[in-house]
Amino acid sequence: MTQIRKILVANRGEIALRIMRTAREMGIQTVAIYSEADRNALHVRYADEAVCVGPAPSVESYLKADVIIDVCRQLGVDAIHPGYGFLSENANFSRMVREAGLIFIGPSPESIEVMGSKLAAKAAVADYNIPMVPGTPSAITDRDEAKAISAQIGYPVLIKASAGGGGKGMRVVESEDEFDEQMDRAVSEALSAFGDGSVFIEKYVTSPRHIEIQVLGDQHGNIIHLFERECSVQRRHQKVVEEAPSAILTPEIREAMGQAAVDVARACGYYGAGTVEFIVNDNLDFYFLEMNTRLQVEHPVTELITGIDLVKQMIYIAEGKPLTIRQEDLQINGHAVEVRVYAEDPANNFLPDVGTLDTYVRPQGNGVRVDDGFEQGMSIPIYYDPMIAKLITYGESREEAIQKMIRAIDEYQISGVQTTLPFGRFVMEHEAFRSGQFDTGFVSNYFSPDKLTPEPDPAEAELAAVLAAYLLEQAKSSKKQPAANSPSTLTKKSQWKTNRMR
Amino acid sequence: MTQIRKILVANRGEIALRIMRTAREMGIQTVAIYSEADRNALHVRYADEAVCVGPAPSVESYLKADVIIDVCRQLGVDAIHPGYGFLSENANFSRMVREAGLIFIGPSPESIEVMGSKLAAKAAVADYNIPMVPGTPSAITDRDEAKAISAQIGYPVLIKASAGGGGKGMRVVESEDEFDEQMDRAVSEALSAFGDGSVFIEKYVTSPRHIEIQVLGDQHGNIIHLFERECSVQRRHQKVVEEAPSAILTPEIREAMGQAAVDVARACGYYGAGTVEFIVNDNLDFYFLEMNTRLQVEHPVTELITGIDLVKQMIYIAEGKPLTIRQEDLQINGHAVEVRVYAEDPANNFLPDVGTLDTYVRPQGNGVRVDDGFEQGMSIPIYYDPMIAKLITYGESREEAIQKMIRAIDEYQISGVQTTLPFGRFVMEHEAFRSGQFDTGFVSNYFSPDKLTPEPDPAEAELAAVLAAYLLEQAKSSKKQPAANSPSTLTKKSQWKTNRMR
Repeated sequence: MTQIRKILVANRGEIALRIMRTAREMGIQTVAIYSEADRNALHVRYADEAVCVGPAPSVESYLKADVIIDVCRQLGVDAIHPGYGFLSENANFSRMVREAGLIFIGPSPESIEVMGSKLAAKAAVADYNIPMVPGTPSAITDRDEAKAISAQIGYPVLIKASAGGGGKGMRVVESEDEFDEQMDRAVSEALSAFGDGSVFIEKYVTSPRHIEIQVLGDQHGNIIHLFERECSVQRRHQKVVEEAPSAILTPEIREAMGQAAVDVARACGYYGAGTVEFIVNDNLDFYFLEMNTRLQVEHPVTELITGIDLVKQMIYIAEGKPLTIRQEDLQINGHAVEVRVYAEDPANNFLPDVGTLDTYVRPQGNGVRVDDGFEQGMSIPIYYDPMIAKLITYGESREEAIQKMIRAIDEYQISGVQTTLPFGRFVMEHEAFRSGQFDTGFVSNYFSPDKLTPEPDPAEAELAAVLAAYLLEQAKSSKKQPAANSPSTLTKKSQWKTNRMR
Repeated sequence: MTQIRKILVANRGEIALRIMRTAREMGIQTVAIYSEADRNALHVRYADEAVCVGPAPSVESYLKADVIIDVCRQLGVDAIHPGYGFLSENANFSRMVREAGLIFIGPSPESIEVMGSKLAAKAAVADYNIPMVPGTPSAITDRDEAKAISAQIGYPVLIKASAGGGGKGMRVVESEDEFDEQMDRAVSEALSAFGDGSVFIEKYVTSPRHIEIQVLGDQHGNIIHLFERECSVQRRHQKVVEEAPSAILTPEIREAMGQAAVDVARACGYYGAGTVEFIVNDNLDFYFLEMNTRLQVEHPVTELITGIDLVKQMIYIAEGKPLTIRQEDLQINGHAVEVRVYAEDPANNFLPDVGTLDTYVRPQGNGVRVDDGFEQGMSIPIYYDPMIAKLITYGESREEAIQKMIRAIDEYQISGVQTTLPFGRFVMEHEAFRSGQFDTGFVSNYFSPDKLTPEPDPAEAELAAVLAAYLLEQAKSSKKQPAANSPSTLTKKSQWKTNRMR
């Protein structure tokens, strides 16, 4: 069993800081790498040592596997944490790290490879009873065969051109009545578009939700799951609001999904922290989608409801320690919600809006966690993902976590760039989200820029002004003046309200 | 059942913000009061409305009961939260508030009065089986009677002059052998000092710990306890480090103390949040000291291990709602530690060191909560308690919470005033604290200014510099230059290390 003494974090921004904080708590030295664009970044200042590895474009710096391994050799680093993105799911990098005699804080290259390929993943889990979206195993052209399979799967089904992509040659069939017609159309569309009329038949998942299970496995074959994260609120197929636990899972389905996730991990000999993603329909049937072989952006919601530091566990696992957490000891305490704060303009199709953080004041208080990599006055580089921060709130109940989130969003002061905070507030106040009845169509179904809360009611501001004037009047004329000084009322200080406004 | 719509917080600083944050989460409007010295304070900016109530000295502003009630009338406030200190345990104020038709977010004036007097409190709990420090019920002069009582109580005992104070005429008697001699001395000392030779005999509590129990009672007679807080680390008889749970209580003693605390609360018809303080000896015998009829400074550690927002519960109780938390559903999750950050110089006998916060950057990350009332550039007024912030960390275990505290202290950047942060770090690293084997004598037993961690080892800094030079050399001469630019190492950035240093 190795004792890790110095970790290089092959990443930047909030996740680099997140990892270094835990390393420091464990008494482990930290090394940051940075690109020329990140010279003044917080993760550079936080680390015990920091090395510039190249120019801004990731391919010339954060993705330079050989340079990073060289830095480790020169600085006596014994382990690399890849964070998420960049080299985190690169099996070759993981292999290079191992071959250099260093520890990769993550799964084996073999696990990454298997789960990196849909086909290999499917083959790997074949021996386990993992629910998959039902469908034809191979492309077919025969209408009667397709119809028979559809009847077996159950309607609605999806007909997908085997050569297709981007929705072309894709048809939803609601019932058998319309099957023949839709099949014929799909085949002819596929033929004319791709010169190939063969199709796949697949169960159409109605009202799909993206729900994922966090797993932890050690190098001794012990695997546990840490419950689910609900990640259905997405824009551009990217998560923007997450929560744990899900508002809709029953204890039975949670357990079944947890067991399926553990089986998927076992199927690829997984160790480290990983996430098994499922698609869940409105009947709570769940189907395995894929496994992410890294720490997820949204891992904090799991940390808050379980009290477990996932990065610490990853480090222990990488050191070869057996898991000390037993499945039966785990339980969900309270509820956590995360809103990702991107430098994007929700009023303008969520287009990135990079610039300088002229004002940047974080919310505080009970149940509020901010994971970020910026401070006031810093610029958001155009080269990387425009995430400024993750705002996470924790409450005794889902309702309390949501209320804390709204309060925290209102308290967050950011100027200089547009952010997704007002969108996050819109989600928190939307009845579909509040009720838990929403799916991955949330944004397209409910959101448009005009839904962002407008400025506070002018009538309210006026009332406050009138009141202030009245008090001043009172103070002047009254004998029993309340204090030495006239009382003054300061109302509706706009600085704490920026995120209600456009 | 009333619905509170607007709360005036009759307090300042971190606790005013703490209360307003929860109010805002509950959709309740907030009104701040402030003294002329606090014109720019954060609690003033945070509130929906704010009123100046007078000059800096508390007696002319924060203690002006009539002015505060007038403000409530004028602004349509329906409830007052007193925070801690100031008017929070003033039965007259609580009565005035009630008589003005307003809600006092706290206990009844009657409960405050009973628990505000040692004698009345003792009488109130007489019907319950509450352990008290054993001793003579009244002053005695007879040596044999005193000796018989001492034998009954068990040694060591304390002989206290009934007219005494400040330790005068006080003697610890370890065993019966020395009783006669010590009694004679105590009586003659008392006679010569006070002209009154009568004494009390009391059990001497060895290695005393201050452990308190948080209780919550509603207006319908339901009372629960939320476990204990260990508050033995004190300087000048004032708490400076607290934690929950205690490192030494057994589940049985925890339950017995919890039950005793609930009984004390029941004895005075208590509702609201309150704290029952006990003194605990090294044998884990516990004795009732007093009840604090308000929210405590150190309440966050209880919030973190139970997931319950105490201010929210106080507001619900004040509205007349019955408690929805049942004792049997409560459990301790993880461990929380609080270090109070005072503008005091631990190297100079903890003398207040007011001034301006030239640098003020809070620590962040998983498991770190900062409750404060300042931001960079603000001055700490000389008129009030010099507490800048409460730094609270939460971990899966006591060890993890302590490690997070050390990391958070190192990350906290404060310049312009001396603070208790380096002292907090000393406590966290001290083996007595680490082992849980400490008592209220911690500071006098273990602390002296020279114990504060000196600057980082110069040898370490030198090594880093040598390494940097070596890398530069390598980069220049080597063919396989690691990156386009020479790697530069930035080592041991002092800004993140301020609290290790003197």
